[in-house]
Amino acid sequence: MSAPLKNDLFLRALLREPTPRTPVWMMRQAGRYLPEYRATRAQAGNFLKLCMTPDLACEVTLQPLRRYALDAAILFSDILTIPHALGLGLEFEAGEGPRIDRPVRSARDIDALPSLDPERELRYVMDAVRVIRRELDGKVPLIGFAGSPWTVGTYVVEGGSSKNFQHIKGMLYGAPSDLHRLLAHLTRATTDYLNAQIAAGAQAVMIFDTWGGALSPAAYREFSLHYMTEIVANLHRAADGRRVPVILFTKGGGAWLADMADSGADALGVDWTTDLGTARLAVADRVALQGNLDPSVLYAPPAAIRAEVGRVLASFGQGHGHVFNLGHGIHPDVPPEHAAAMVDAVHELSPPYHR
Amino acid sequence: MSAPLKNDLFLRALLREPTPRTPVWMMRQAGRYLPEYRATRAQAGNFLKLCMTPDLACEVTLQPLRRYALDAAILFSDILTIPHALGLGLEFEAGEGPRIDRPVRSARDIDALPSLDPERELRYVMDAVRVIRRELDGKVPLIGFAGSPWTVGTYVVEGGSSKNFQHIKGMLYGAPSDLHRLLAHLTRATTDYLNAQIAAGAQAVMIFDTWGGALSPAAYREFSLHYMTEIVANLHRAADGRRVPVILFTKGGGAWLADMADSGADALGVDWTTDLGTARLAVADRVALQGNLDPSVLYAPPAAIRAEVGRVLASFGQGHGHVFNLGHGIHPDVPPEHAAAMVDAVHELSPPYHR
Repeated sequence: MSAPLKNDLFLRALLREPTPRTPVWMMRQAGRYLPEYRATRAQAGNFLKLCMTPDLACEVTLQPLRRYALDAAILFSDILTIPHALGLGLEFEAGEGPRIDRPVRSARDIDALPSLDPERELRYVMDAVRVIRRELDGKVPLIGFAGSPWTVGTYVVEGGSSKNFQHIKGMLYGAPSDLHRLLAHLTRATTDYLNAQIAAGAQAVMIFDTWGGALSPAAYREFSLHYMTEIVANLHRAADGRRVPVILFTKGGGAWLADMADSGADALGVDWTTDLGTARLAVADRVALQGNLDPSVLYAPPAAIRAEVGRVLASFGQGHGHVFNLGHGIHPDVPPEHAAAMVDAVHELSPPYHR
Repeated sequence: MSAPLKNDLFLRALLREPTPRTPVWMMRQAGRYLPEYRATRAQAGNFLKLCMTPDLACEVTLQPLRRYALDAAILFSDILTIPHALGLGLEFEAGEGPRIDRPVRSARDIDALPSLDPERELRYVMDAVRVIRRELDGKVPLIGFAGSPWTVGTYVVEGGSSKNFQHIKGMLYGAPSDLHRLLAHLTRATTDYLNAQIAAGAQAVMIFDTWGGALSPAAYREFSLHYMTEIVANLHRAADGRRVPVILFTKGGGAWLADMADSGADALGVDWTTDLGTARLAVADRVALQGNLDPSVLYAPPAAIRAEVGRVLASFGQGHGHVFNLGHGIHPDVPPEHAAAMVDAVHELSPPYHR
């Protein structure tokens, strides 16, 4: 049915199988730093319409692959599709970030949350996955994704982005059983959502825990990692006769990588505040690692970018199980040719580490 | 000359000497969560005038001590007094955070920076220290402070608060020797500034490295810790016949505590993302630890606050060398009685850990 995969370096690295070089992709590679992305977004009218129009979501997913020798595509979507499908009233205001009109703050709000059928309320995402797989034609694998229950929960409870997490942390410390019920609900929805993406054609999935690093170690284990582990245990892990690898990424979670390696995930994302060599020791090669160039390195000139790519490759060191990436999403004000310098440097400098 | 110190628990804990209970203070304890602070600030006209008027700075420094049984006062000031004194044009716009009119971005800008004489350009700070010491009358010790060169540098180069640190990281990776010259200049100014505070009466000093955690481990050592270590080595460490302890605090620096313990500091601040028990093992009791309640715990009801205080005390465990604090500044929208619940809980729950 699907075209055979021409470049499976990314999937093999996630399973710690040998590859001739280190595969590379960039978080938020389909994004505002690309003029062609800005043009398509303008055509869509707004960010949410871009996510909800499968042909346009496919177009922006493929744009970075036309510019750079990347080893994976990632579905263009947003971690807030689930609150949107739950009917909480999601809006993206220009320059303001996301806003949720009806935040969930009480036991009654939690009880009122509907169940989701991803092929109905989130059908536009699955349609995008199917269109992208067809258009990719086996060039590279397609990554599906979702936010972690804790991270999505922060938006759902706060009503948008937050710095101090007033409401959700008030709940975490003051009414923890309410928060557990909310997170259990989001966990069921997220599991079904990722399984639907896999059924539609996602060849690997990543769980973004952008705000797990705002928690204490004990709260992280209880309110974030616990639910990500539950998701991983319930994913359908095979498609097209291959294993579907799972990547967990907790930004600011460098100290917890050993715990995260027990989650059942195949690979862990690492941000730039943790040395990959240290991370590799912490996980004792039980999982692959993905990362971790400081995205702000891309503000520097190409020669400096190349040198820093070399440092990241050296910090992981000899052997397999490394997927090169930024330590967080690419910044919108980076020159596109600086991303090219990074990708090219990975291609040129990584083969010696795989001999 | 000065009144004898009636409560030296804080100074003794910083030097890991025995105390009958754990001393406690709060970062940003003189701040917007207190209605009396907001009244004094309104009287001053704006934030900078409040910092620059010694009698008003003294008044807000003492306000939290009237409400809570705190074991230290901290000079009311700002980490951006140095860029202000350097003539870079500092303004605090309502709700906007700090703005620096003439950011330092080139080698020429760096060469043009003047030297500082803290008793001249920053005399208002030393006057505030002297007034506060007189008014404290030996009740508790007074903490002086400064920002780390890296952290102050981020504002100086970016021209204000930043998320991605575009300009300073562009310099760090693209023109590192320029950045080193800037940081060396800020290090000299900060050393003189802290020594002037000690001469004026500060009985302990703290270096706030709010943005060190935005760096990679290698960049942190080279561009932040290196300069803080240089400051520590050049401080005058005695006053009134007592040692003046130094506290280093890198927010997000939990993974680097062992390196920080080599700096010569007496104590390290720890944010809530690192368990104090883990931190204590990392530093092997070479330094005292200060922290680390999640400031957002204060959004929860008093009973939950008390339970979380108990967890923090238990995570440090038996023995001396712990100063209780929040893991970051108190949030402006916290009810003042919730801060009382925290302070009271430390008084009540900590004695068993000191037997």
